[in-house]
Amino acid sequence: MENFIFHCPTKIIFGRGTDQMVGQETALLSRRILLHYGSSSIKKTGLYDRVTTALKTAGVSYFELGGVKANPTLDLAQEGIRICREKGIDFILAVGGGSVIDSAKTIAVGVPYQGDVWDFYSNKAQITNAIPIGVVLTIPAAGSEASERGVITREDSQLKRVIVSPFIRPRFAILNPELAYTLPPYQAACGCVDIMSHMLERYFTNAHPVELTDHLIEGGLQTIIHNAPIVLAQPGNYDAWAEIMWTGTLAHNDLMGTGRIGDWATHRIEHEISGIYPEVAHAAGLAMLFPSWMRYVYQHDMKRFVQFATRVWNVPENIGNDETIALVGIDRLEEFWKSLGLATRISAAGISNARFEEMAAKCTENDTRTQGNFVKLNQSDVLKILMMAY
Amino acid sequence: MENFIFHCPTKIIFGRGTDQMVGQETALLSRRILLHYGSSSIKKTGLYDRVTTALKTAGVSYFELGGVKANPTLDLAQEGIRICREKGIDFILAVGGGSVIDSAKTIAVGVPYQGDVWDFYSNKAQITNAIPIGVVLTIPAAGSEASERGVITREDSQLKRVIVSPFIRPRFAILNPELAYTLPPYQAACGCVDIMSHMLERYFTNAHPVELTDHLIEGGLQTIIHNAPIVLAQPGNYDAWAEIMWTGTLAHNDLMGTGRIGDWATHRIEHEISGIYPEVAHAAGLAMLFPSWMRYVYQHDMKRFVQFATRVWNVPENIGNDETIALVGIDRLEEFWKSLGLATRISAAGISNARFEEMAAKCTENDTRTQGNFVKLNQSDVLKILMMAY
Repeated sequence: MENFIFHCPTKIIFGRGTDQMVGQETALLSRRILLHYGSSSIKKTGLYDRVTTALKTAGVSYFELGGVKANPTLDLAQEGIRICREKGIDFILAVGGGSVIDSAKTIAVGVPYQGDVWDFYSNKAQITNAIPIGVVLTIPAAGSEASERGVITREDSQLKRVIVSPFIRPRFAILNPELAYTLPPYQAACGCVDIMSHMLERYFTNAHPVELTDHLIEGGLQTIIHNAPIVLAQPGNYDAWAEIMWTGTLAHNDLMGTGRIGDWATHRIEHEISGIYPEVAHAAGLAMLFPSWMRYVYQHDMKRFVQFATRVWNVPENIGNDETIALVGIDRLEEFWKSLGLATRISAAGISNARFEEMAAKCTENDTRTQGNFVKLNQSDVLKILMMAY
Repeated sequence: MENFIFHCPTKIIFGRGTDQMVGQETALLSRRILLHYGSSSIKKTGLYDRVTTALKTAGVSYFELGGVKANPTLDLAQEGIRICREKGIDFILAVGGGSVIDSAKTIAVGVPYQGDVWDFYSNKAQITNAIPIGVVLTIPAAGSEASERGVITREDSQLKRVIVSPFIRPRFAILNPELAYTLPPYQAACGCVDIMSHMLERYFTNAHPVELTDHLIEGGLQTIIHNAPIVLAQPGNYDAWAEIMWTGTLAHNDLMGTGRIGDWATHRIEHEISGIYPEVAHAAGLAMLFPSWMRYVYQHDMKRFVQFATRVWNVPENIGNDETIALVGIDRLEEFWKSLGLATRISAAGISNARFEEMAAKCTENDTRTQGNFVKLNQSDVLKILMMAY
C-alpha cells in the first residue's frame, strides 16, 4: 500500500426530502450566494422552487446563473466570476450534476485569483484559495459533489482540462435519490458508466497489495451492476437510486483510491473526444474507450484482470486459462454497458476517425508526456487505442 | 436505505514514517498542548522521542500526562482536565491506542464544561463544545482515531459508558502501520476482534436494502480474516498491518454504517463485563459474547446470516438448508477468533458467572430499557446470552 493523505470533510446529507435542508445548511456558511444551475429542468421538477424557498426562509440572498451545459465551458464560468466579484458573493450553491458543480468549482477558484482562471487548468498557477461551494445533487455520475477535482472546456481551443485541489471540495453535498427519478434513461446509463469508470481507473494499479480497497471497489462495481438495470426499468425505484447515488460519491471522493495509484489514461483520452465533440457526454466517451484500453493493456498484469473477471463479473475460474478469463471479464463489461443502451465503439456514436491523430497528439502534448500510470501510454499507444475503439 | 448525515472531517495521514509529521500537523492547530499516552512502551520503542522531537522542532510546547490503562478511567481524565485548565492548554495529542484516545476525548469535552464531565456519560448533559484532539495511533483496534465515540470507566461504581458527539472526532490521525510491529500477539488479536466487531454491529441491521455498505463491510471483514493470521505469524509484515490499520479506521468512522441502523447490544453487554473486570480487554469480552449473541438472534433474519456465512466465510450454499448455513457461518467466526488465541467463552477467560444477574440488570437499567436494534433485548434476554456465552 502506498502512503497517502485522505481528507474528505464534505458533509453528506443523504436521503428522501433532504433538499429541503439546503437553506439551513447554506445559512451556516453564507448569506449572500450565487445559485448556479444548468437547464430549466430543475424548474420543471419543482426543485428550483424548493431550493429558492428554503434559501429565502433561511435568510439567504441569492444571485442566479443558469445555463451550464454538459461539458461546462470557461466562458460561462468567467461570467460567474464577474458576478461574484460585482455582487460581493462569497459562496456558490451548485444545484445539478457534475457539469454544474465543476463550473462552480471554476468560479470558486477564479473569484479570489487576480489572473486568468485558465492558468490553473494549464498549470501556469497553483490554487491557493477558493470561495466555498455547496451542492444539491441531481445526477449521480461525476462524483464532483465530494471530490477535489473539476473539469472545464475552453471552447476557443477545444481543450478540456482538469484541476485538483483540496480548496474545491464542496463543504456540503445534499444527496436526495428522489431527484434522479426524472433523469432520461440515456443520462441515467451515462451516470452509471461514469461511476464505474471512476472505480475502474483506481482498480487498475501497480500498487500491491491493496486488499481492502480492492474489496471496496469490487463492492461498488457490483452495486452499480445490480442497480443500473433496475433504475432503467423503474426510474422511480428509490432503493436502487439510493445505492447508485451513494456509490457515485464514494467512487470519486478518493476513499477507493487510498494507498493506490490510479491510472486515468482513459479519462484523459476521453477528454480529447468530448473536447472536440462537446455533444458527446463524458461517460459516453468513456464507454467507447475503456474496453479497448483494457484489451490494449491487460497483459501488463493478467492476474489483476483475472481478479476483475472473477470477483466483479463472477466469471468461473474453470472456463480456461488466465488470458481467457481476463478477456471474458472485459467482454462482460462491454456487454453490460451495451445493455444499458450505450455505444462501446466510437464509430457507433457517429464520430469520425478523422481527428484521431490530432487527439493523440493533444493528449500527449505531441508525444512529450505519457498518459496513464498502470501502463504509460505515448502518442502512438493513444492512437492505437483510439483505432481499436473505433 | 435510511436517511443519514455522514461527516468525517478527520485528516488521515497514512503510511511508513508518517509519525514524523506530527509536529507540523499539530502546529497548524495549537502551540500549547497536552501530550497524552499510556504505558512506557512508547518510550521503549522510540516513538516518544520521535514525537517530542517533532513537537519541539515545530515550536509546540507540551505538558505530559501518561498512565492511561486499558479501559481508561474517569479519575485520570479528571486529572487531564485539571492540567489543561491550569496550563491554558487548548489541544490534546493522544499517542496510543483506543484507550488513550478515549481518555483524551473525555478530557476534551471536560475542559470547557463547568459541571462534572460524567454528566455527558450519564446523559445528564449534552456535549456542545470540546477542545480539539489529534492522534498518533499505535494499535489498530478501537477505531477511535476517526470516530465520534468515546468510552470511559467510572471506577467507584464500575460503570463503563459511552459518549457520541461530532465534537470529539479527532482533527487528524497519523496512521503508521510500522508502529504496530511491537504489539504483543494477544493485543494484536484483540485489535482484530475489535475491528471485526465494529463491522458486525453494523452488519446486522433491519434496514433493507443496504447493498453497497453490505459489500463494504464484507470486504472489510475479509481483509481482517486474511491479514490477522499473517501479523500473528509475522509481526513485522508491513503490508498486512497496513490493511488491518486502514480497515480499523474505516470500520468505525461511520462510513460502513451509512444508511443502516447498527445493533450495538453486544458492545453494551461487554461493557458490563469489562466494567466489573477491568483486566478484561474490551475485545476479549466481545469475542466471548458475539457468537452467543448471534446464536440467540439469528432466527430473526436468517437470510442475513446466510449472506454473512456465504459471502464472508465462503460457506458453500449446498451444505444444507438456510439454518445450517447460518449456523456454520457463526461457527466459522468463533473458530477464527479461537485460532487467533482468544477465548470465546466467559468461563474460558476465568471469569465467574456470579455477577451475571447484576450485569443484566445494569445493562438494561433494571429492565427499564432494551439494548440492541436488530433484536431488542430485555434483562432476561441479556442474562440468557451471558449464560449461553459462559
